[in-house]
Amino acid sequence: MRVSERIGGAKLLAVGSVALDTIETPETISREQLGGSATYFAFAARPLCAVAMVAVVGEDFPVGERNRLTRAGIDLDGLQIAPGRTFRWSGRYGDDPNERTTLDTQLNVFAGFQPQLPEHYRDADLVFLGNIDPALQLDVLEQVRGPRLVACDTMNFWIERECEALKRTLSRVDVLIVNDEEVRLLSGSRGLLKGARQILDLGPRALVVKKGEHGAMLVTRDEIFVAPAIPLERVIDPTGAGDSFAGAFMAYLSQQKTLNSAAYRRAIVHGTVAASFCVEQFGIAGLEGLDHQTLGSRLDHFRSVTRWEE
Amino acid sequence: MRVSERIGGAKLLAVGSVALDTIETPETISREQLGGSATYFAFAARPLCAVAMVAVVGEDFPVGERNRLTRAGIDLDGLQIAPGRTFRWSGRYGDDPNERTTLDTQLNVFAGFQPQLPEHYRDADLVFLGNIDPALQLDVLEQVRGPRLVACDTMNFWIERECEALKRTLSRVDVLIVNDEEVRLLSGSRGLLKGARQILDLGPRALVVKKGEHGAMLVTRDEIFVAPAIPLERVIDPTGAGDSFAGAFMAYLSQQKTLNSAAYRRAIVHGTVAASFCVEQFGIAGLEGLDHQTLGSRLDHFRSVTRWEE
Repeated sequence: MRVSERIGGAKLLAVGSVALDTIETPETISREQLGGSATYFAFAARPLCAVAMVAVVGEDFPVGERNRLTRAGIDLDGLQIAPGRTFRWSGRYGDDPNERTTLDTQLNVFAGFQPQLPEHYRDADLVFLGNIDPALQLDVLEQVRGPRLVACDTMNFWIERECEALKRTLSRVDVLIVNDEEVRLLSGSRGLLKGARQILDLGPRALVVKKGEHGAMLVTRDEIFVAPAIPLERVIDPTGAGDSFAGAFMAYLSQQKTLNSAAYRRAIVHGTVAASFCVEQFGIAGLEGLDHQTLGSRLDHFRSVTRWEE
Repeated sequence: MRVSERIGGAKLLAVGSVALDTIETPETISREQLGGSATYFAFAARPLCAVAMVAVVGEDFPVGERNRLTRAGIDLDGLQIAPGRTFRWSGRYGDDPNERTTLDTQLNVFAGFQPQLPEHYRDADLVFLGNIDPALQLDVLEQVRGPRLVACDTMNFWIERECEALKRTLSRVDVLIVNDEEVRLLSGSRGLLKGARQILDLGPRALVVKKGEHGAMLVTRDEIFVAPAIPLERVIDPTGAGDSFAGAFMAYLSQQKTLNSAAYRRAIVHGTVAASFCVEQFGIAGLEGLDHQTLGSRLDHFRSVTRWEE
């Protein structure tokens, strides 16, 4: 019996960070709000499927925030509590929400993070390796038993400092989900399509390029798919948009019998919808109350703003 | 009888520049190639409808370039030849084709441009006011007799220096076609949708926002439409992409009985297709040989890279 059946349909495993973020915008400041890649991922995945996380927090992690995760139905058996303080990140967005300045990063317990999968996580159907040290991403892959799909994220820090380890990880993942700048950095090519194809040579059979307010793109050996982002009246806090995208993308795929091109395309649209909710409020507030009806309405809205043939 | 019937179906009038551009890319340099807003516009419009231009060149304008315009079937009765040299522009693109540096601008005869419409242009169905002094744009509107649709372009130079004149022009046009930075500059709003709505208050009933490699957006009082750009293997020369977009957009509309939302959306996709051909080669070379079959194939390609529902 697979874990997904044993733990009530939880098929999707996310490895990443749980953080306390302090976010400044031109209007206001939101202090020590619940954040981190695994958090955003799980909250975006949750309306579509059961999700479990592997992450670490410190002993100071507020019980109220833990309760928010639990209430959302996220499996926290893999959430370690380590001696010390929780990972903290602080950033400021300008008048242009695309302009972000990191003010402070305190890794704290996240610096010593060693992902340990509870036994009932090891048969997960789908695995998302969030943006952590590629050596740890590989370590997680050693702990799971033949997942149906593995996706990973990374960032400039690892591309520049741990490129060989990252390439070993990439040789074992199905989907790489990164932003356009990371495609250029990893491939060394200014042309996005050319760079994407070079990355496919490293192992993944699909590359998903997140372009923020400009949407997302899928590149495989055989095809290209592009989806615009949903135009929004107001962007409040772009933090976590990429992880929310990945969460809904993977959660949608977890519900599909066949992981073919059509499924990937629909998954990208579901990721686009989740990211649009994420950025409309601070932190996870925009994702927290999401139900199928609200998601369905936004999906209809995506259809209406992209339709051009009768 | 309308001009469109008298001159063999020419319904679309473009006012703008004809220039000799010198373009540097990391690989090569292309000297004194045929360019200018009216040129790109007309070459992109030509496969879809008959088009006439109002512009000025100097006595040095090469007869070979004039022949290219004539061979393309562009009505040049409104192309003035003034004493002096033709408008010259020189620019350099970096490894990233979105990074453009203007090296030299010599307005020459374009500095004294006074649009004069030949009598048979005055009943044009659709009029495009390219990026020129807003006072001259207004002057053109005084010379036409009740066109079905008027669109205009502008740029930061006019927004900053001739804002009142520009607002007078905008109060009399149906569609403003500009890029995202120009929306922000003209509206004073960082939010694109908010800025777009403020611009609609100035008169136009539709705003088309060109976002380069990120596609295009339509905003009216009632709706929003977004279209991604077509991902390209290689961008050689982005010069004229926006004017090509506008040319095919207007030419497509010129063929429509009803100028409703669906027509605008399809027109934007046709503009997207034309712009994709424009940037694949230097100058107008990518547009010059276009026929319906080639355009149709690229339209099919657009469908295939954006489709996500069965």
